[in-house]
Amino acid sequence: MVQAKTWILTKHFEGSPKESDFELKVEELPEPKDGEVLLEAVFLSIDPYMRPFSAFRMKEGDVMIGTQVAKVIQSKNPAFAVGSHVVGRCGWRTHTVCDGTDLIPVMPEWPQDISLSLALGTIGMPGLTAVYGIEEVLGLKAGETLLVNAAAGAVGSVVGQIAKIKGCKVVGSAGSDAKVAFLKELGFDEAFNYKTIGSLEETLKKASPEGYDCFFENVGGPFSTVALQQMKDFGRIAVCGSISTYNDTTPQTGPYPQFTMIVKQLKMEGFMQSRWEHKHPETLKRLIGWVKEGKLQCREHTTKGFENMPAGFMGLLKGENIGKAIIAV
Amino acid sequence: MVQAKTWILTKHFEGSPKESDFELKVEELPEPKDGEVLLEAVFLSIDPYMRPFSAFRMKEGDVMIGTQVAKVIQSKNPAFAVGSHVVGRCGWRTHTVCDGTDLIPVMPEWPQDISLSLALGTIGMPGLTAVYGIEEVLGLKAGETLLVNAAAGAVGSVVGQIAKIKGCKVVGSAGSDAKVAFLKELGFDEAFNYKTIGSLEETLKKASPEGYDCFFENVGGPFSTVALQQMKDFGRIAVCGSISTYNDTTPQTGPYPQFTMIVKQLKMEGFMQSRWEHKHPETLKRLIGWVKEGKLQCREHTTKGFENMPAGFMGLLKGENIGKAIIAV
Repeated sequence: MVQAKTWILTKHFEGSPKESDFELKVEELPEPKDGEVLLEAVFLSIDPYMRPFSAFRMKEGDVMIGTQVAKVIQSKNPAFAVGSHVVGRCGWRTHTVCDGTDLIPVMPEWPQDISLSLALGTIGMPGLTAVYGIEEVLGLKAGETLLVNAAAGAVGSVVGQIAKIKGCKVVGSAGSDAKVAFLKELGFDEAFNYKTIGSLEETLKKASPEGYDCFFENVGGPFSTVALQQMKDFGRIAVCGSISTYNDTTPQTGPYPQFTMIVKQLKMEGFMQSRWEHKHPETLKRLIGWVKEGKLQCREHTTKGFENMPAGFMGLLKGENIGKAIIAV
Repeated sequence: MVQAKTWILTKHFEGSPKESDFELKVEELPEPKDGEVLLEAVFLSIDPYMRPFSAFRMKEGDVMIGTQVAKVIQSKNPAFAVGSHVVGRCGWRTHTVCDGTDLIPVMPEWPQDISLSLALGTIGMPGLTAVYGIEEVLGLKAGETLLVNAAAGAVGSVVGQIAKIKGCKVVGSAGSDAKVAFLKELGFDEAFNYKTIGSLEETLKKASPEGYDCFFENVGGPFSTVALQQMKDFGRIAVCGSISTYNDTTPQTGPYPQFTMIVKQLKMEGFMQSRWEHKHPETLKRLIGWVKEGKLQCREHTTKGFENMPAGFMGLLKGENIGKAIIAV
């Protein structure tokens, strides 16, 4: 009999999540039946989307939603060998019994010298999000100028690097001087700490006086209003996240964007990577290739211990991480 | 020597335009030189865009911007015969001396029994806007459901009728019971008076419980926020106008749209018909065809007398017109 630790959402978040919204619960797991496997979490992902999605994809008392890299420790499913690793949407839990549905084996071409935790980051959902946002939504072309905010985060840092691979000028916004230094290391052309600049408008103008062809939007809120004004005519905006509004108890408001969108003929599109699931295998291979060639640097912010998962999550929403936030069990 | 009456913007509008913002001025026109023509306005267009564009395409003392159907009454340009008609961006003026640049002759296939005023409406800029919004921006397909607001206006009424031609379900919002009756005459599947319904959200849900594939946006402001919530996943929004915000002295604010755009994966695009200028001749022929076949009904709201042009414009911004607002000299 295996005991699984799980993190339960005891109460829907109001404003910023707090300790008392979570409860660590121990669950006795049954033996895997025919077709089932027993998994043990190795790395768990914490991501901003968990905050807003908790409101309408979970009810109080549910295990928190989320993805993990897990090791198969028992198997009654021939598709999953004991000792192999999978990526699964098991939620915040140390052990899981499930059938193979929705489990994705770590790719056979995964290089020995690359941490499996990257399957939750640059070579996983955030990396896929960066690629599809750039290629499918923005159609970013060499020579164009791209703006990305939350640029030191799991998605933003990959976005900027891929845009550089594609021969673009990249301007990044982040929330600390350490993050800005990281962006410069990654090869961003311009980077700034939005918390310490005087005027966002002036900063964006100075970083690219001719405006922006593309904007990869992770933040939303007042930043979006200012950024819209700095787009070139026919600018494209990929809306991936809106982290500055996730903890709102009453929705923040800002000027309606319609008129700006008309006179500049802007295109804005919200997206989630799952739309291009059929392309995942090919895209992950490209991401692995870039990592191996050293073209994509992967920084992680690792919190040790399953017990510290809520703290890691709350830190993420405060912007404490540089790169991908990961829980190592 | 010909005298031209002109309407001058004496003062940039603050809030709703008022009588004292305009001044009727008489101008002595020179004789046309070689290559030039003398035009006499027959019909002048008044359009909502004039309100916001006055702020950044005009300075105080300028003649109001705008398009007119004019008759060539003198010609020293062989391309324009005396007695022929042209569409030109001459501004609010009864007579104009200009070279042929930017003048568009009324198409030779123009049917005798169709008023030339339609060259400012259904067979002109508003009709082109409707076609490109539907075909180029929305990519509307047979069987889809379209929402259009300001639906009884010059653009909206054409949008709804073309969507019906294309085999779609059309839901229209307008600001009076008379307009709603007009929309029903035009074949709209559902139409409502947004001023008298209790809840826009409930009304939109009832009109199309499964949501909306496409939204042709003419209004902006709070309507847009509610409409976004009623879009289907992967919904497309063509942003053509934002009339509810044009008279703002301080910008109205509303909830940021980003998160809704992400979870529904919506695409929103601002546009102006001039982007597809190369397609105008072919598109105008199609519009003429639909009018001749009786598939496109053209209602006009005509104000008589050049002197009444400001009053007509102010009435337009208050929603007094059904169909295209026109000044007949």
